[in-house]
Amino acid sequence: MAAESIEKWVLTLTAQTPTNIAVIKYWGKRDEDLILPINDSISVTLDPGHLCTTTSVSVSPAFTHDRMWLNGKEVSLSGGRFQNCLRELRSRASDVEDKEKGVKIAKREWENLHLHIVSYNNFPTAAGLASSAAGLACLVFSLAKLMNVKEDHSKLSAIARQGSGSACRSLYGGFVKWIMGKEENGSDSIAVQLADEKHWNDLVIIIAVVSSRQKETSSTSGMRDSVETSELIKHRAKEVVPKRIIQMEEAIKNRDFPAFARLTCADSNQFHAVCLDTLPPIFYLNDTSHRIISSVEKWNRHEGIPQVAYTFDAGPNAVLISHNRKTASLLLQRLLFYFPPQSDIDLNNYVIGDKTILKDAGIHEMKDVDALPPPPEIKDTNLSTHRNRGEVTYFICTRPGSGPVVLTDQNQSLINPETGLPK
Amino acid sequence: MAAESIEKWVLTLTAQTPTNIAVIKYWGKRDEDLILPINDSISVTLDPGHLCTTTSVSVSPAFTHDRMWLNGKEVSLSGGRFQNCLRELRSRASDVEDKEKGVKIAKREWENLHLHIVSYNNFPTAAGLASSAAGLACLVFSLAKLMNVKEDHSKLSAIARQGSGSACRSLYGGFVKWIMGKEENGSDSIAVQLADEKHWNDLVIIIAVVSSRQKETSSTSGMRDSVETSELIKHRAKEVVPKRIIQMEEAIKNRDFPAFARLTCADSNQFHAVCLDTLPPIFYLNDTSHRIISSVEKWNRHEGIPQVAYTFDAGPNAVLISHNRKTASLLLQRLLFYFPPQSDIDLNNYVIGDKTILKDAGIHEMKDVDALPPPPEIKDTNLSTHRNRGEVTYFICTRPGSGPVVLTDQNQSLINPETGLPK
Repeated sequence: MAAESIEKWVLTLTAQTPTNIAVIKYWGKRDEDLILPINDSISVTLDPGHLCTTTSVSVSPAFTHDRMWLNGKEVSLSGGRFQNCLRELRSRASDVEDKEKGVKIAKREWENLHLHIVSYNNFPTAAGLASSAAGLACLVFSLAKLMNVKEDHSKLSAIARQGSGSACRSLYGGFVKWIMGKEENGSDSIAVQLADEKHWNDLVIIIAVVSSRQKETSSTSGMRDSVETSELIKHRAKEVVPKRIIQMEEAIKNRDFPAFARLTCADSNQFHAVCLDTLPPIFYLNDTSHRIISSVEKWNRHEGIPQVAYTFDAGPNAVLISHNRKTASLLLQRLLFYFPPQSDIDLNNYVIGDKTILKDAGIHEMKDVDALPPPPEIKDTNLSTHRNRGEVTYFICTRPGSGPVVLTDQNQSLINPETGLPK
Repeated sequence: MAAESIEKWVLTLTAQTPTNIAVIKYWGKRDEDLILPINDSISVTLDPGHLCTTTSVSVSPAFTHDRMWLNGKEVSLSGGRFQNCLRELRSRASDVEDKEKGVKIAKREWENLHLHIVSYNNFPTAAGLASSAAGLACLVFSLAKLMNVKEDHSKLSAIARQGSGSACRSLYGGFVKWIMGKEENGSDSIAVQLADEKHWNDLVIIIAVVSSRQKETSSTSGMRDSVETSELIKHRAKEVVPKRIIQMEEAIKNRDFPAFARLTCADSNQFHAVCLDTLPPIFYLNDTSHRIISSVEKWNRHEGIPQVAYTFDAGPNAVLISHNRKTASLLLQRLLFYFPPQSDIDLNNYVIGDKTILKDAGIHEMKDVDALPPPPEIKDTNLSTHRNRGEVTYFICTRPGSGPVVLTDQNQSLINPETGLPK
């Protein structure tokens, strides 16, 4: 490092990382500190164009301690999970040279240099859409790039895992498997890509962000309670999930939508069954979630073959995966029929993300929503009992997406390159 | 039978049978026709003073076919389950003599005589409070008495079981176990009394009848779906329930309320977990049920020792079993705090059954409900989020009760002794 520049330079790097939704669920740790799960899990990475975390990281000899800002607010980095990730990354850092800035950082210097981390989600954190998975994955990915960590994505996934279990699955696009591993030190508890996002590119995903009055149980404490008190979770982890993992890998490989949908729905339901079998019981699904499930089940049975899969994480929001654009537009018609918005909401703010699905569904303005006919699978003609106005806050239309990327456009950086502070 | 009276006489008999609530749940049949369960279950019989079925049965040579009236409406007896019960009873009938009426019926004549059955629940059938259990038990019990069937209650329970599984447990008061049995013909799948209602007579039961928009899945089709599709039900039936049955018998024997409450709550939750693990998933608990469970769990944890047990059957209604009158009055205060009635409802119609609990709770008029302070276990001081007006239709205060009885007072008969038709 050139002595004359010690006080001045700031090196920055910006990356973007997707969120993911598990189709075979992770629920339960065998090691709380290392975050080692009791079963394998499989996820779909969501298009970062609609749901992602952007993180800028910077290093400077002028920084006096590690600091982090999330969605515009400074947050503490003192938690053990952040510290585990930072320690693991520093120990794997390599020499870095920025010729343009005339900066050289030797491998051993990383231990003494401090970091600034600025992170931003392009979706509401409050929506409960696995923001910690994308966030921790992005923190690990961006710092690894800044520090020239030469590990591959699987090794990085084992570091991200120690920040937030499901974060390890956000290091790849497409379909990702988190292998539980066998080692006590967690070295083989890593994520691997099963197929990239181009492998099965006609899937369309609609997320229903559900209005809720309930304060939710955190997944960390919830899964701890389940492991300690549920009689059913051991059977699930040992007997049920291993078979489903094999079947799900096969379904993804063969783009077998009916098998994929059946497994996804059954595994979401079983995860929530285990939550209910926990003491005290954990309720993530609410009456709106129940109504969404029942309407999808009714439609799928009416068609004789699954059109849509549903899956719910640790909250009431539904993630609905449809076979293709055609079924997605039929699904969106149904969702808007069952869950019209409050009258003061603009259609443009009620269905966000990929709006072409809305056009495919023939819905251009709010009066098209009001005019939607009941789906043919409904027999009861008392329509008022079917329309649950205001129960959904908004819908996001998206699709399976790609893994983390470095953003080279300096305009996208969240850090002021002069001060090293958030822009 | 005296020839001259053939066309004229009508013999009648009236009985009353309680309903029951399972604390270790019955869910799943191994034989659909004989109604043989996949696990033992244990129930508490509820006081027939508050919840029971009254049935009058009659026989006359003038009757041309078997007929039944339920709650004032004639219903069909052609269902296989009714027919099974009638066939089993007729085959076990004995000689009957009514000296006062000068009537003699020989054993063999029962096969050719027709029956009229008039049944009435003293609680709303729509409330979903296991009316079929009390109803079928009462049908079997009253006909057995009329026909001089000389079997003991356990044998009768095996007949009632073929009408409605849980009906077999309504043939005894107090605490009752339905032994699943091993025989293919179901002869050893019977109910036995574990303890009578005097054994543990300080328990108080409050039932919350929950308002619901959902159409519920019938338990018959629901449990069939569970047996066919749930991965968890086998583990529950084989591994979990047998242990719980032993522990529950012990808890009842020792009047060990903490153990009784923990087992009751855990088993209710596991039954609903199995429902959720079914394809399509079955939702009996709704948001109000969830809120009742969470408030009881919060109170129990705050006290450090269970005050109240909750259990839910195939619907959203809560059955809350409290340790004694003191905890029951504290429970009722909490329930009325969390679930005040709609403003147009009279307190007298909102809390029914044993109203002395209401007096113990210091609640004499509706303004006492409005003035209820938040329970000490609530930390959040925003009270409006805790008061869920109108979510409960009404409460029933009751207790464990006695088994079936014959009513000798002719005024209580539901049948006109001249015509053999409903009064």
